[in-house]
Amino acid sequence: MTVGPRAGGHKVYQGGTLFPDLRVPFRQVDLHPTAGEPPVTLYDPSGPYTDPAAEIDIARGLPALRAGWIARRGDCAVVDQPRAVRPEDNGGASGATLAPAFDNTGRVVRRGRAGRPVTQLEYARAGIVTEEMEYVAIRENQRRAATDRVLRDGEDFGASIPDFVTPEFVRDEIARGRAVLPANINHPELEPMIIGRNFLVKINANIGNSAVLGHVADEVDKMVWATRWGADTVMDLSTGRNIHNIRDWIVRNSPVPIGTVPIYQALEKVGGVAEDLSWEVFRDTLIEQAEQGVDYFTIHAGVRLAYVPLTARRVTGIVSRGGSIMAKWCLAHHRESFLYEKFAEICEIMREYDVSFSLGDGLRPGSIADANDAAQFAELRTLGELTRVAWDHGCQVMIEGPGHVPMHKIKANMDEQLAHCGEAPFYTLGPLTTDIAPGYDHITSAIGAAMIGWFGTAMLCYVTPKEHLGLPDRNDVKTGVITYKLAAHAADLAKGHPAARLHDDAVSRARFEFRWEDQFNLGLDPETARCFHDETLPKDAHKTAHFCSMCGPKFCSMKISQDIRDAARGQNDGAGMSAAEITAGLAEMGEKFRAGGSAIDVAVVE
Amino acid sequence: MTVGPRAGGHKVYQGGTLFPDLRVPFRQVDLHPTAGEPPVTLYDPSGPYTDPAAEIDIARGLPALRAGWIARRGDCAVVDQPRAVRPEDNGGASGATLAPAFDNTGRVVRRGRAGRPVTQLEYARAGIVTEEMEYVAIRENQRRAATDRVLRDGEDFGASIPDFVTPEFVRDEIARGRAVLPANINHPELEPMIIGRNFLVKINANIGNSAVLGHVADEVDKMVWATRWGADTVMDLSTGRNIHNIRDWIVRNSPVPIGTVPIYQALEKVGGVAEDLSWEVFRDTLIEQAEQGVDYFTIHAGVRLAYVPLTARRVTGIVSRGGSIMAKWCLAHHRESFLYEKFAEICEIMREYDVSFSLGDGLRPGSIADANDAAQFAELRTLGELTRVAWDHGCQVMIEGPGHVPMHKIKANMDEQLAHCGEAPFYTLGPLTTDIAPGYDHITSAIGAAMIGWFGTAMLCYVTPKEHLGLPDRNDVKTGVITYKLAAHAADLAKGHPAARLHDDAVSRARFEFRWEDQFNLGLDPETARCFHDETLPKDAHKTAHFCSMCGPKFCSMKISQDIRDAARGQNDGAGMSAAEITAGLAEMGEKFRAGGSAIDVAVVE
Repeated sequence: MTVGPRAGGHKVYQGGTLFPDLRVPFRQVDLHPTAGEPPVTLYDPSGPYTDPAAEIDIARGLPALRAGWIARRGDCAVVDQPRAVRPEDNGGASGATLAPAFDNTGRVVRRGRAGRPVTQLEYARAGIVTEEMEYVAIRENQRRAATDRVLRDGEDFGASIPDFVTPEFVRDEIARGRAVLPANINHPELEPMIIGRNFLVKINANIGNSAVLGHVADEVDKMVWATRWGADTVMDLSTGRNIHNIRDWIVRNSPVPIGTVPIYQALEKVGGVAEDLSWEVFRDTLIEQAEQGVDYFTIHAGVRLAYVPLTARRVTGIVSRGGSIMAKWCLAHHRESFLYEKFAEICEIMREYDVSFSLGDGLRPGSIADANDAAQFAELRTLGELTRVAWDHGCQVMIEGPGHVPMHKIKANMDEQLAHCGEAPFYTLGPLTTDIAPGYDHITSAIGAAMIGWFGTAMLCYVTPKEHLGLPDRNDVKTGVITYKLAAHAADLAKGHPAARLHDDAVSRARFEFRWEDQFNLGLDPETARCFHDETLPKDAHKTAHFCSMCGPKFCSMKISQDIRDAARGQNDGAGMSAAEITAGLAEMGEKFRAGGSAIDVAVVE
Repeated sequence: MTVGPRAGGHKVYQGGTLFPDLRVPFRQVDLHPTAGEPPVTLYDPSGPYTDPAAEIDIARGLPALRAGWIARRGDCAVVDQPRAVRPEDNGGASGATLAPAFDNTGRVVRRGRAGRPVTQLEYARAGIVTEEMEYVAIRENQRRAATDRVLRDGEDFGASIPDFVTPEFVRDEIARGRAVLPANINHPELEPMIIGRNFLVKINANIGNSAVLGHVADEVDKMVWATRWGADTVMDLSTGRNIHNIRDWIVRNSPVPIGTVPIYQALEKVGGVAEDLSWEVFRDTLIEQAEQGVDYFTIHAGVRLAYVPLTARRVTGIVSRGGSIMAKWCLAHHRESFLYEKFAEICEIMREYDVSFSLGDGLRPGSIADANDAAQFAELRTLGELTRVAWDHGCQVMIEGPGHVPMHKIKANMDEQLAHCGEAPFYTLGPLTTDIAPGYDHITSAIGAAMIGWFGTAMLCYVTPKEHLGLPDRNDVKTGVITYKLAAHAADLAKGHPAARLHDDAVSRARFEFRWEDQFNLGLDPETARCFHDETLPKDAHKTAHFCSMCGPKFCSMKISQDIRDAARGQNDGAGMSAAEITAGLAEMGEKFRAGGSAIDVAVVE
């Protein structure tokens, strides 16, 4: 498992004001002295794994960061008799096939007390700012001060992104359902984060074994690896045997919210026969996973019997696993989905642990041909209806979206979601903008993800190069995460997020000034950037050379325009100069060039 | 060098009607018999290299496909005394450092006869349909018939894409300057292609050595490799020694238009000292390269003295090599650019060989911070002015564009270009939508490229993963080309190009029906897709299995929804069925499921 600081940066923490015991983590990149710039502070979801001071022991799990906060609030009670693990929870695995259980000795399971607030939404509505809320407010500001000059010129399509995030703003966004803070009271190891249109765009990485692959250590490693590169949440999509035990290991070691699709485990419990699913089995599974500490559940309650026929003429039918399972159940019994009929009871269960809803789009299009069709939008309207029911029960909600959508049909998805789902955060998979590039769908989808993120989607579910072809390995997970980080950032830039441009400009200044190490370290993937550079100009000397391998010394435009700018500025910084003065300065520099026969260039050539 | 057919497809040719001797190449992918579909015909710029019947000998070069057409028209004369190669053409390389010259024995150099049409624009204006025009008309239709049903629902932002391309439509688009057919009369080996807003979006791949790297064989191989994966044109950006000889090898072996930036070689001829450049040296270089057969020249005539000060306060100054060289020259002499002052003479030279203009954006932004600034748009207006001058001289013109632009500022670039450049084709580099991901700029730029292609850009210049870091190797070239092919296709889809959806739907049907081999072969990169699949499910048996490694048998949504659809359709194809009939069919199938306990699923598990 890869732990320790990431290249070129180190961990720093900021305390709270309302809650002094908060320690909000950031990745700080110190720049070369010649930059004359302060360090750059970046958002960092990687948890204690990148802190050299942290003692990592996955058998013990991460420290229970939030335990004190939850205890302090006193709104939750310890469950006397938590649900006991049963053989079917692990798909009947036993003996050698049974994955080792995480040692939960001393761990207690909590549940909200009757009549007391337990979800972040309930606290927010009560006007209470929780520790989690101040934590994410500090986190979103990336150590900028409220008084810092703000550089923003985006098009936000009606979002309301503040120059500076206060804990009260976080509270109000959660209170009106426009943001979600996924934080199960049984996941005290969590470093709180927020998902909403008026905050930084977040990304999710899917991990999980399947009937075909997967082991405990691999999945924990993938979770740590994904967050190391920037995953804000992780979904465990495990199926098959041992999923209970694997999930225990993942949640206990995860600094980010963990999402699951409970219907997968429920199906395992009935031997994989969809029509044998029942409300009782599903309900049991919700409680099992809520007590483990899962932070959000994908619930495909929008797949109603009447919508299934709408998919009959699609090119790719139903491509959501959960959606197809429920469609099959509905057809087998020819009755309405129990997820839809029992939705209020589902809300009551999830509220007691503050498990957030991720209302699944079981009828999302699986191809360009099926984008924005009747089945997809019928379900979306139902998800809007269910959002209001969940809110009435005090539950936090986000809405899942497509899928495969050509560029010209992407905005309609965002508009429909905003129109029908009361601004609950949108959480989309891509969308892929073409179907012709298997092996490159991290890219076909990054195009759609960047666009829909710009339009207002709050979280982007990554797609790896293996999409449609196989299960992602470690490298695929990293490629998927970095690709989605850049797409999410491109969206923040276009929305005019006040912190976004600072990062781009820092990289650009480093590039222009040939501060190679700064350019690498400020990038999303320093190792890869450095390695690409060294392939053509290996010598360290070149990391300070005022040219690079692309153009060679004589053709270096950056170098030439530095000469131009320096000359133009003369002794001052040019800020106060008129165009005429600059032209004069440039002309003067022209003389110098002629006199010296470009001494600088020649010098570099030797 | 990699030659021979690409996996899963074979070369087919279509003859002409006006010109029966045309043989327009396509890549045909035959589908599995169970598909019950005709083969899929794809656009194929790879030339004879992918035709097993072709004899490849790079020492001899490709057959002179167009020689007969040019002779037949009789508008060009053989140049008695072509310009002789001089030592400075190869940067003074000699002996061991001199790259072998291409054997031009028997090759003649042609030039337009006085008073006769020579450029495709002049022919088009005269109402003449050339062989090249019918060739590209056939090529753009991808063997669809004029009577084929058309599937299109895009947003074209005012483009006028026809359902079916006729030679007359090609002629008319060229006549009004809205499309460019780059085809130097001294590049008879060329397979004609067209660049215009109302045709398929094209992509360019840059190759070329530099002072630091590069050899003859490598560059020819890179050109063949780039076109193998789909590059529609190739720019040779070589600098340093041997560029004349290297260019000869590239042009004689290239089936696609070759573009260059003549100022690079001119600078070499004056020892790399920008201020020593002169009109005479540049003029000599234009003739040298025009006689070699270069199809389009990037000319940075829009970098005017008065604009240079506008760059003085940029974060990354001038990032175009040609732009910075000319800016330096203007300053050194403190006078207007000779490219601007001598533009009419440049037109006269380029017209005689039908070398197309690619008016360079020497002041394009090199960072998010500098996007859409005064310098960039001042130059763009000048490029519009120069476009009209070039058109008056009978020259074909396209306009180069940025660069680095955040998503919300991309459309303004297209709108400005359309407003000021008379709909001359726009040819952009990316644009990159963020600066924070060195090592992944093929992706940061694919986002911008897909969007600006949708808005109307006719050709996208690729960016490789090595951008800003080093020179691309073979793998980088392939990654860049595939990435841009998918971006260009996403743009065609969004524009509603009548041929675009056919490709996506063929892949999606193959995916839904588990025709793995068809899915691989129809993809942009069959080898990679197949290899990704085999990493997790190596056994050939699985290529026909009705599930894959992502979900495993029990969770296969595609399989489930196939069952749903098949049952719903009963014995007919469902086309004529009402929703009620389908629901009934589905209910009936539900019974079958219950009775059989999902026999199919179980069977697959065993």
